[in-house]
Amino acid sequence: MSEPLFDKIALIGIGLIGGSIALEARKRGLAKHIVAATRSPETAALANKLKLTDHCGTDLAEACRDADLVIVCTPVGACGPATKAIASTLKPGCIISDVGSVKQTVIADMAPHIPKGVHFVPAHPVAGTENSGPEAALLDLFQGRWCILTPLPDSDAAAVDKLEAFWKGLGSLVERIDPKDHDRILAITSHLPHLIAYTIVGTADDLGGHLNSEVLKFAAGGFRDFTRIAASDPTMWRDVFMNNREAVLEVLQRFQEDLFYLQRAIRWGEGDKLFDLFTRTREIRRALIHLHQA
Amino acid sequence: MSEPLFDKIALIGIGLIGGSIALEARKRGLAKHIVAATRSPETAALANKLKLTDHCGTDLAEACRDADLVIVCTPVGACGPATKAIASTLKPGCIISDVGSVKQTVIADMAPHIPKGVHFVPAHPVAGTENSGPEAALLDLFQGRWCILTPLPDSDAAAVDKLEAFWKGLGSLVERIDPKDHDRILAITSHLPHLIAYTIVGTADDLGGHLNSEVLKFAAGGFRDFTRIAASDPTMWRDVFMNNREAVLEVLQRFQEDLFYLQRAIRWGEGDKLFDLFTRTREIRRALIHLHQA
Repeated sequence: MSEPLFDKIALIGIGLIGGSIALEARKRGLAKHIVAATRSPETAALANKLKLTDHCGTDLAEACRDADLVIVCTPVGACGPATKAIASTLKPGCIISDVGSVKQTVIADMAPHIPKGVHFVPAHPVAGTENSGPEAALLDLFQGRWCILTPLPDSDAAAVDKLEAFWKGLGSLVERIDPKDHDRILAITSHLPHLIAYTIVGTADDLGGHLNSEVLKFAAGGFRDFTRIAASDPTMWRDVFMNNREAVLEVLQRFQEDLFYLQRAIRWGEGDKLFDLFTRTREIRRALIHLHQA
Repeated sequence: MSEPLFDKIALIGIGLIGGSIALEARKRGLAKHIVAATRSPETAALANKLKLTDHCGTDLAEACRDADLVIVCTPVGACGPATKAIASTLKPGCIISDVGSVKQTVIADMAPHIPKGVHFVPAHPVAGTENSGPEAALLDLFQGRWCILTPLPDSDAAAVDKLEAFWKGLGSLVERIDPKDHDRILAITSHLPHLIAYTIVGTADDLGGHLNSEVLKFAAGGFRDFTRIAASDPTMWRDVFMNNREAVLEVLQRFQEDLFYLQRAIRWGEGDKLFDLFTRTREIRRALIHLHQA
């Protein structure tokens, strides 16, 4: 354990991500004090029962008093209001960040509330599970996973470096990307897969009828992986789609075109078109294994 | 280890499924002799090197001589030709089965070649991995997974019972289903998920451009699960789509409608429609966990 990077960290929101940051930061000695706050008394009580932080309260502003690092760990739709609520207690020199899966709208929502002298460095740890809430918090959630920082043109360089050191301290690999590129990349690697998984699980459920129990029974044939993704937090994901609309609609349009191409090939018995794509996608998996992300 | 169910089993095709049947049947002592045959000399040589069976040759008919159980373990498009090739050496009283993910066309392709006195019992083990070929063979592949038997109206009852005992001996749970219901259920639980996974991986690859390496790097956000599915055997899956066309096109049509519904909700900012679906699909995952198939 090395010298703590921060005296006090405040986490606004204490679910899967906030809770996991707390557990990991404590284990690795990255801060002397770690507190959290959430608007929900039930969630706060649960976080305290699980001892995720030194203390979890319901007064967001109070939690941030004297903090050197504040991370907003709410669904992206709540990042703006949460920042507004804590603005008055953010001390000069404090770093404020987030964990949102969308960056452009989160930046637009948070930035106007951040006082002069406070350093805003948006971030997105690309890690998670389908579970949510304080009980979903896990050690090692960030180990070997990427955390993307999307600094702004006027972000303080020392603050960006310090936040990078923090995420590396949690076990992450860190990369810096432009917010717009981030949103396009995540639209294809994360948002579209989730939307499709949600859709197919719903379609299967509707189709069921007298076959419904069989649909669940024989889920091992591929469907099972989709149900896991489609069990992710509804509020978080509603907010993602509402906030990354443009990029999601663009990739969705391309996906639809590609799917219609295959649908037509199936209808007309053009097996070679399917075979060619299936061969190409197999190579992509191999590239991913090569990159150690599979 | 109990009394062997069969004196001699012949496997036609020795990839992931055939190879895994061979390994498991030998370990569990379900047959005195297990042989295999494949048209590919390279595959046969590999199967022999890996000692998956007592012997693997390239003469399909010769392998089936004196066999009590013959299982055609080829991609579904090859089931008809393979059955035609072995028909002359199938002994009276022998059981012939398959492992195809489509049942109606496989039955239509195989049945005409099967001699009188040989018992045809179609089957489909709902198990697998994204790997293929003899080296993909695994012990425990069928443990706790369903094997669906789709007996024909005139299937011999004793033969069906014996094949059921064999699959249970391999560790599977067994259910008997009408071939048409099977094809509809698998279209939604397996075929559509695979088609979609193949599509999205292709879409992502095309989108890439200067972002391509980032798309792979940040795959942990959901995309990774799709790449695994989309790495499945191209020949097997081409054949599935060519052979279960009607059922796949039907579920694909419904899926497209449902996806357009969500697309429109995203475009018009109707978050409640997303939230309602996402909440419902989360429940479906819980039902699946309850059924121990997750």
